[in-house]
Amino acid sequence: MYGQTIAEKILQKHSTEPGKPVKAGDILFCSVDFLMSHDATAPMAIRAFENMGGTKVFDPSKMVLILDHATPAPYERIANLQSMMREFAREQGITFIEGGEGVCHQIVVEKGYLRPGDLALGTDSHTCTYGALGVFATGVGSTDMAAAMYTGKSWFKVPETIRVNLKGTLRKGCSAKDVILKTAGVIGADGANYRSMEFYGEWIDRASLSERLTIANMVVEMGAKCGFPCGPELGISADADARYLMDAEIDLDALVPVVARPHAVDDVCPVSEVRDVAIHQAFLGSCTNGRMEDLREAARILKGKKIAEGVRLIIAPASRQVMLQAMEEGVLTTLIEAGGAVFTPGCGVCVGTHGGVPADGEVVLSTSNRNFKGRMGNNKALIYLASPLTIAASVITGRITDPRELEG
Amino acid sequence: MYGQTIAEKILQKHSTEPGKPVKAGDILFCSVDFLMSHDATAPMAIRAFENMGGTKVFDPSKMVLILDHATPAPYERIANLQSMMREFAREQGITFIEGGEGVCHQIVVEKGYLRPGDLALGTDSHTCTYGALGVFATGVGSTDMAAAMYTGKSWFKVPETIRVNLKGTLRKGCSAKDVILKTAGVIGADGANYRSMEFYGEWIDRASLSERLTIANMVVEMGAKCGFPCGPELGISADADARYLMDAEIDLDALVPVVARPHAVDDVCPVSEVRDVAIHQAFLGSCTNGRMEDLREAARILKGKKIAEGVRLIIAPASRQVMLQAMEEGVLTTLIEAGGAVFTPGCGVCVGTHGGVPADGEVVLSTSNRNFKGRMGNNKALIYLASPLTIAASVITGRITDPRELEG
Repeated sequence: MYGQTIAEKILQKHSTEPGKPVKAGDILFCSVDFLMSHDATAPMAIRAFENMGGTKVFDPSKMVLILDHATPAPYERIANLQSMMREFAREQGITFIEGGEGVCHQIVVEKGYLRPGDLALGTDSHTCTYGALGVFATGVGSTDMAAAMYTGKSWFKVPETIRVNLKGTLRKGCSAKDVILKTAGVIGADGANYRSMEFYGEWIDRASLSERLTIANMVVEMGAKCGFPCGPELGISADADARYLMDAEIDLDALVPVVARPHAVDDVCPVSEVRDVAIHQAFLGSCTNGRMEDLREAARILKGKKIAEGVRLIIAPASRQVMLQAMEEGVLTTLIEAGGAVFTPGCGVCVGTHGGVPADGEVVLSTSNRNFKGRMGNNKALIYLASPLTIAASVITGRITDPRELEG
Repeated sequence: MYGQTIAEKILQKHSTEPGKPVKAGDILFCSVDFLMSHDATAPMAIRAFENMGGTKVFDPSKMVLILDHATPAPYERIANLQSMMREFAREQGITFIEGGEGVCHQIVVEKGYLRPGDLALGTDSHTCTYGALGVFATGVGSTDMAAAMYTGKSWFKVPETIRVNLKGTLRKGCSAKDVILKTAGVIGADGANYRSMEFYGEWIDRASLSERLTIANMVVEMGAKCGFPCGPELGISADADARYLMDAEIDLDALVPVVARPHAVDDVCPVSEVRDVAIHQAFLGSCTNGRMEDLREAARILKGKKIAEGVRLIIAPASRQVMLQAMEEGVLTTLIEAGGAVFTPGCGVCVGTHGGVPADGEVVLSTSNRNFKGRMGNNKALIYLASPLTIAASVITGRITDPRELEG
């Protein structure tokens, strides 16, 4: 028997037969520590739960319901679904997070619901974000959520793990977003399907929580089940002799600011290759890059500047806490004075469910995690993904711009 | 010949036969000084303009196009209509105000487009707000707007004028909103149909611009064509011997905080009569009460307090300028810390076009100007209109509450 990866360790610990050694490929039933569902998916999960004959959630203290995808409610139908969620949460004694509090993943992190080694499910594909806290966290459909709400358990095929070695360290103008976009370019949009990813290297060892959240957030864009930005901060580690499916290496010393071109997250190129592309809208926000560090980075470039004519900048702080902090530090003032429009903390702009839908043919530069056709609500728009720094530089010039050009 | 009301004076000055004395009931063609149109109505006006064979707007410097009803765009269709407006403005050389700048009427006031004695048309019923600047300003449909864009002229029946005498002065807990709601209760929702209203008295003589805007904003809720909070600040005055259709008197000394009950703006009663009504949502914003003074009033009560469980508070500052000022003064921090969620400056929440749609059966307390069935996007919700002070007090208790109860 060889050693275990982080995914193997966590799943074994939660297995219904915890004494039995676990390796990739095994199929297990596991007890879950935490369930999260939001307004885009919870109504279906609740309905499925009730159709299964569910009356009481197995442990209401292990679940949280969050309104973040369309708040404040944009239509009557959604308002009524949200009302139903409130009612269900009250009846069940489940913690309910009202609209305006922010993006579910940011809230879960801020509220400290999770500990390293936990097993968490969410009805949102970016549930993998909690990997930054050492949690095996993954997105599930509404029916799997309903079954977990009923039983407190779910089944898992133990994933193989890809080890990503991040060599060297980041240069000026680059950020965690460039690292994970570059990784997606190398691994491919389906290169990590149903696998776990572990990230290593001197940069990730010292990366901030915000940076680690950005990395973990986007592992699902390569198809991964879960992902872990490893290092002393993580609170859990793989065995030295763990077995990996493959190793990938990213040379951070050679990294430059990059974008993912429409309509694929793995169509990644240096910003310089698309520098003539005019933009209509930019979005600063999301569970990928809507945190304080992201807003600060953008504000550093936008301080005293104005966005170009014909360009719109939408800012959605990842949470109420981020918004308050950004106000306290003057960062939000800088962004608004530059010409930005603030949207209520939440997911709507990123996912096209509420606010910031682009027009036909428009080019959007977004700090978010997805750029497939129709993301943001219009399949005739073109979405480029980039870092907050790149976006801040680009709204000033009106064209996709390498932030190093503006920082001298 | 007797003297003239403000409406008669302004219309005569703009008549195509300005030397000919004008009195109520006359029908005139007038040259207009200013045209305003926004995203909910401009697309129809532009189409009508083009269908009339219009190619160039008579004087692009006299028109402004504003995005405020649904920004940032909530769907593809609206995004495309807004894109068409941008294109039209660029082709015509018309000033274009991008989404996020705020509510059209607030922007028009802040930008100083208007002078006392001007004649303005807008494709929005609350265009009457500019009466606070001494402007004959009124809402028109998209076809009338198109004709005015083409010719620079429109026809008017000179309105009769109702003189409203506001006796005495405001007591603690009362504000301009209570004055105008009380007036609506006395005059009735159709009591001023196609009439002008002139407001007089010691309180209005000293009222701030913000208060006067609140008064002028709601004259259309009584059916009025236009309205003027008169006094030394207005920059235009009626002749001493002007003829009025009727006089109404409101005793401010006896005024208490009031609400308009669902579903009629003139179903006005003291707050104390509805003090047991539980609320689900409150809205602080709109062209009626989304200004700095309004946010300050609410923050004064909410400082250090939390909104009641089960209550949502949405704040949409009337403009970018208001939002920046509210951030600078710490007012927005107070409102967010109390539990409020900030929506992008604009009209959406008030009019149900973008954000904050209530669920079936929910009770909303709003600082806005309309509470008919379906306003805010759900005809099964119940909307009460009140002042910012009343709303701030009510979100704390979770029930409609007289602000004097909380201010001791």
